[in-house]
Amino acid sequence: MHNTPCTILGIDPGYDRVGYCVASVLSSQFSVLNYGTIQTDKKQDLSVRYQQIVTELTALIKEFKPTQLAIETVLFSVNKKTAMRVAEAKGIITGVCLSQGLQIYEYNPREIKLSVTGNGNADKQAVAKMLNLELKLNSNKELDDALDAIATAYTHFLNLRIK
Amino acid sequence: MHNTPCTILGIDPGYDRVGYCVASVLSSQFSVLNYGTIQTDKKQDLSVRYQQIVTELTALIKEFKPTQLAIETVLFSVNKKTAMRVAEAKGIITGVCLSQGLQIYEYNPREIKLSVTGNGNADKQAVAKMLNLELKLNSNKELDDALDAIATAYTHFLNLRIK
Repeated sequence: MHNTPCTILGIDPGYDRVGYCVASVLSSQFSVLNYGTIQTDKKQDLSVRYQQIVTELTALIKEFKPTQLAIETVLFSVNKKTAMRVAEAKGIITGVCLSQGLQIYEYNPREIKLSVTGNGNADKQAVAKMLNLELKLNSNKELDDALDAIATAYTHFLNLRIK
Repeated sequence: MHNTPCTILGIDPGYDRVGYCVASVLSSQFSVLNYGTIQTDKKQDLSVRYQQIVTELTALIKEFKPTQLAIETVLFSVNKKTAMRVAEAKGIITGVCLSQGLQIYEYNPREIKLSVTGNGNADKQAVAKMLNLELKLNSNKELDDALDAIATAYTHFLNLRIK
């Protein structure tokens, strides 16, 4: 039941916006160190947007030195083009993290909702409420964009505890 | 019509196998320096296979120092799961290359066939025949697996010449 100290990078993948969360695990306590969104410019070429994601992600890894990536699974959407692009963006993030030596863990939306709220069909509000309650995120920053990333990192923490 | 000297990394993306080609462009001559396949083990977890791709790709980049990546577009296939995985693998390769400072260029299969053979609907045999003729690839190595990667790198070279 006792966690080895580590730093987790939680990611909600995308090419339009990437939600991220950095959290430390110390004495089996999960503490959010930083969270936010990498927002790319719709007017730019995809390669420029990808470069921005790589640059900002690399800066985050350099600053916080996470050793584990917890990333949300991309489910297939009705729009094939969007699904393929989000899968590619997830790959880009995974590639950067593997290059930097992080271990990769993946959780699907149902697992995340179940871990955080106890209900695999919980809505966004229920997830937000539970995370605020559990993690006491007293921040002025908008939680919304990074919510899934925080939930993914927290799911990874809970999953490590069970083992 | 004169190319700036550069080294191109051509990639046919996949998670099962990644075809690659390294080619130099000097005095408007395209010369293949190396080609082959990164073959991952079906029995391993996807994360282990991804790690192998990242490690072998990074070694190639360190050895040959390419500055441009020419990568083939992933078309949507009937099997959603496969299509999403190949898109993710393409992302991983792109992420590693962006991390290493390469510029990214993408070509779809039709563009590649058209550039190499003059026919956008050419079959694999026609592409192989034309590449052997143009590039004089007198090698004992099996061309087959790396054929698309060589064709993609060559397409990028031809595309640069037109500009």
